[in-house]
Amino acid sequence: MGANNEANQANWMEVPLLLELDRASRVPLYRQIYRQLAALILGGQLPEGFRLPSERELARRLGVNRTTVVAAYQELSADGLVEGHVGRGTIVIGRRRAGRAGGGPPLLWSGLVQARLHVPWGPLLQRVGTLSARPGVISFASGILDPTQSPHLKLEQAVVRALSRPAWQLLEDSPTEGWQELREEIARRLAGRGCDKLSARCVLIVSGSQQGIYLVAQLLLRPGDAVLVENPTYLGALEVFYRLGARIIGIPVDAEGMQVEAAQRALAGGQVRLIYVNPNYHNPTGTTMPTERRLRLLELARRYQVPILEDDLYGELSFEGAPPPSIRALDQGGYVVYLGGLSPLLGPGLRLGWLVVPRALVPAVVAMRKSIDLHHSNLLQAVALELLRDGSLDAHIRWLRHACAARRDEMLAELSRLQPLGLQAGVPGGGLHIWCSLPEGCADQELLEEAAPLGVTFMPGQLFFVDGSSQGFIRLNFAAPGPGQIPEGVRRLGEALRALQAKAVGAEEQAGRPLI
Amino acid sequence: MGANNEANQANWMEVPLLLELDRASRVPLYRQIYRQLAALILGGQLPEGFRLPSERELARRLGVNRTTVVAAYQELSADGLVEGHVGRGTIVIGRRRAGRAGGGPPLLWSGLVQARLHVPWGPLLQRVGTLSARPGVISFASGILDPTQSPHLKLEQAVVRALSRPAWQLLEDSPTEGWQELREEIARRLAGRGCDKLSARCVLIVSGSQQGIYLVAQLLLRPGDAVLVENPTYLGALEVFYRLGARIIGIPVDAEGMQVEAAQRALAGGQVRLIYVNPNYHNPTGTTMPTERRLRLLELARRYQVPILEDDLYGELSFEGAPPPSIRALDQGGYVVYLGGLSPLLGPGLRLGWLVVPRALVPAVVAMRKSIDLHHSNLLQAVALELLRDGSLDAHIRWLRHACAARRDEMLAELSRLQPLGLQAGVPGGGLHIWCSLPEGCADQELLEEAAPLGVTFMPGQLFFVDGSSQGFIRLNFAAPGPGQIPEGVRRLGEALRALQAKAVGAEEQAGRPLI
Repeated sequence: MGANNEANQANWMEVPLLLELDRASRVPLYRQIYRQLAALILGGQLPEGFRLPSERELARRLGVNRTTVVAAYQELSADGLVEGHVGRGTIVIGRRRAGRAGGGPPLLWSGLVQARLHVPWGPLLQRVGTLSARPGVISFASGILDPTQSPHLKLEQAVVRALSRPAWQLLEDSPTEGWQELREEIARRLAGRGCDKLSARCVLIVSGSQQGIYLVAQLLLRPGDAVLVENPTYLGALEVFYRLGARIIGIPVDAEGMQVEAAQRALAGGQVRLIYVNPNYHNPTGTTMPTERRLRLLELARRYQVPILEDDLYGELSFEGAPPPSIRALDQGGYVVYLGGLSPLLGPGLRLGWLVVPRALVPAVVAMRKSIDLHHSNLLQAVALELLRDGSLDAHIRWLRHACAARRDEMLAELSRLQPLGLQAGVPGGGLHIWCSLPEGCADQELLEEAAPLGVTFMPGQLFFVDGSSQGFIRLNFAAPGPGQIPEGVRRLGEALRALQAKAVGAEEQAGRPLI
Repeated sequence: MGANNEANQANWMEVPLLLELDRASRVPLYRQIYRQLAALILGGQLPEGFRLPSERELARRLGVNRTTVVAAYQELSADGLVEGHVGRGTIVIGRRRAGRAGGGPPLLWSGLVQARLHVPWGPLLQRVGTLSARPGVISFASGILDPTQSPHLKLEQAVVRALSRPAWQLLEDSPTEGWQELREEIARRLAGRGCDKLSARCVLIVSGSQQGIYLVAQLLLRPGDAVLVENPTYLGALEVFYRLGARIIGIPVDAEGMQVEAAQRALAGGQVRLIYVNPNYHNPTGTTMPTERRLRLLELARRYQVPILEDDLYGELSFEGAPPPSIRALDQGGYVVYLGGLSPLLGPGLRLGWLVVPRALVPAVVAMRKSIDLHHSNLLQAVALELLRDGSLDAHIRWLRHACAARRDEMLAELSRLQPLGLQAGVPGGGLHIWCSLPEGCADQELLEEAAPLGVTFMPGQLFFVDGSSQGFIRLNFAAPGPGQIPEGVRRLGEALRALQAKAVGAEEQAGRPLI
């Protein structure tokens, strides 16, 4: 929709003048726009059939991001107050027609939702999903692996053995903390990885690492509280912190992970309530924090009395020997909550993870978990116990390390052909992802739009940055693609890079500027 | 510990004078006590070896409940700042000794936890659990049933059939909303119960009704927001609302469920953001709301623009024909979020429930669920789909209705023998529980303490009341006890009632008052 539409032309141009945005308010801008437009519709100032300004136009006139207006229009649409029509734009329905016959006015839910609904990166994330789902597309965008080719993963057998328990054991209620024997099994496993003297009392079963992050954040953070994260960091953690209204402080990452000097400055500067860190095969950059830096981070936690949430999801997926001891293993003072789970080893579909928490925090986590979800499924706990106990998981992990390392090497070899184009690939010591920096002037999102029609997608790096501003990186998953997809996908990526660079040169020629 | 202890006697009597409580503050009293005592210990005013006043004594001196002081001491103990010693009381450890060798000072987690940790009813609930777990005790306290005797429940077969899917289907990630085919199956099922024209898009799979309540409450309630509930109501809902800091307004329940006149007064009076209601075989009272009252409640929701959370966990467990149409089925304006699940039919161990939400609320619930727990287990969804599809669940439900009705009748017959003692039992039309009013002067908690040594337990009714003040009721589960336990358990209950009444008479005689 543009200025060349006929109907309502005078009217829709006035809409921006009817809206007053308070940029100092804690109410998000999209919410302010939504509320004021809803009031105008319900009050009859914007009557049925009225055409709203296009998202782009309203954004320009209000001086806000287009995504802000998109979010506001989505809420109006969800409330049944407007309808989007291809070619006609966004049309007011009016409250009367929105109510169903005989039912009276419908409830306007969007106005009632108190939680932060729209994450700023939502539209781009959705775009990646849409593009990756197109037929024929090779997706490097995934965050998971395909473990089903493992000759050692005997999921069916584990489930059938779990079923040999009496049915009441699978159907009765069970402790919120998790099955005692499973907690003991995990404590033993972690003892083998350096957490000696770990009591099973401190191991709590959760539905996955996402729930672990949510529980800890919900317990420790109030709106406005600061949390330190690596910048870039895991998107699911950013989402939790954002929704809880936390102030997210991104600490730069170098080849050794979170830069502790920058962390120290942030800790000295303000009311930091939590440090979230992913020290092994960091998602997305693939870096691993050396022991010395882990100790310095712990020292900072002690000095500033701030707890650390250590996300060790990828710790067992190591390609070149075991990683350094976990921060939890180095911790003598109960500063660390440790997070692990089965998803990076088995795929995320089963849903089982664990939190290791200092004893003092156990009752709080259990109480919060009980409110959210009384306890974890007995069937899943029984299956996990079988997988952990009979050695098949360990055999699977050994296979997985070799299989994933081979895929990493294959992808790195293919990516090296793109070096002349200016693409630089990091070398992760484990995990699922390769982090690449793009040639100067090449933005992640533009590359995605160029690459998708050529049949390859990936995660734009900006999705992992706290402020979304760094656009010079992409994340490639080497563990999910099927056989033969890595060479072809990287070839397509190179094609997209070349096309994008040619366009840039073309644009500069058109602008009459000298060539690079 | 009392005034006759020797050491520190002068000191501990001064402790109450060192504490200043601000009863107008939003910081809970136990938290104020904890924080000030922690500061006194860390500051050295209360040195190592110092004996704190007994919980009872400090509560008396500060004019607070004993449970408040208990909670404060528990936090100090969790932080490693004090230690409880039988016979010696609560002794200060001091910060230095609390730190482990070489590790420096430990982190004081309790001071960092922002969420509401202690529910006021926690100690009594724990007491019920402890008493019910004693060997030889017949427990009527449970909130679940024992479905394993059903000839129709073929859980193992359903799981094995679920395993016939390719492993990747069970291990890959899946939509936060739930599997599409499962959502469609549940939509069809609910259509058969009056919710016609229900789109599968509005059905969201959750881990159970507890998670459903949490999601809705977390989306709609901010601290201080009011929520209307039946008084008494489901304890797990109270817990969620309490932890989120909501203002919980209890609406009295009569033989037809929530009294809508009282609900209307509350809605007219203030900023109510949610109505939580359990209209079928209400937990704990067993009452069912007639259609006419459901319609009036919907009318109130419309008038005051307040959403309804309809918890229909027990709706399928009906003994005398189907219940009235659900409020969701009567709703024309999208005012109702509807909650159902497998727990009341299969036991809570499997973990699978569903939310039916108005279309406008779908994105918000999905976003919140994604933050808490990316998606539900594929294995559990596959099992649920098998159970729902092959008719074995329906056969099981038909069996369950007969089995539970027979147990209800057995318990009612036994309870009728206690009528002469003044115990009145309600007759639930479905569900798992019988709600009994106690003879005058007989308090639920006293009866529990009398009954447990005689080998029977139950839920004291005060646990279900918003303010915990009504002590004249108990809730008995007839669906969980094993064969033969109902007559013996009720016999023991009668014995406890008689003993308690004899004590009351004895006390009155001792006090020189006339007998009743």
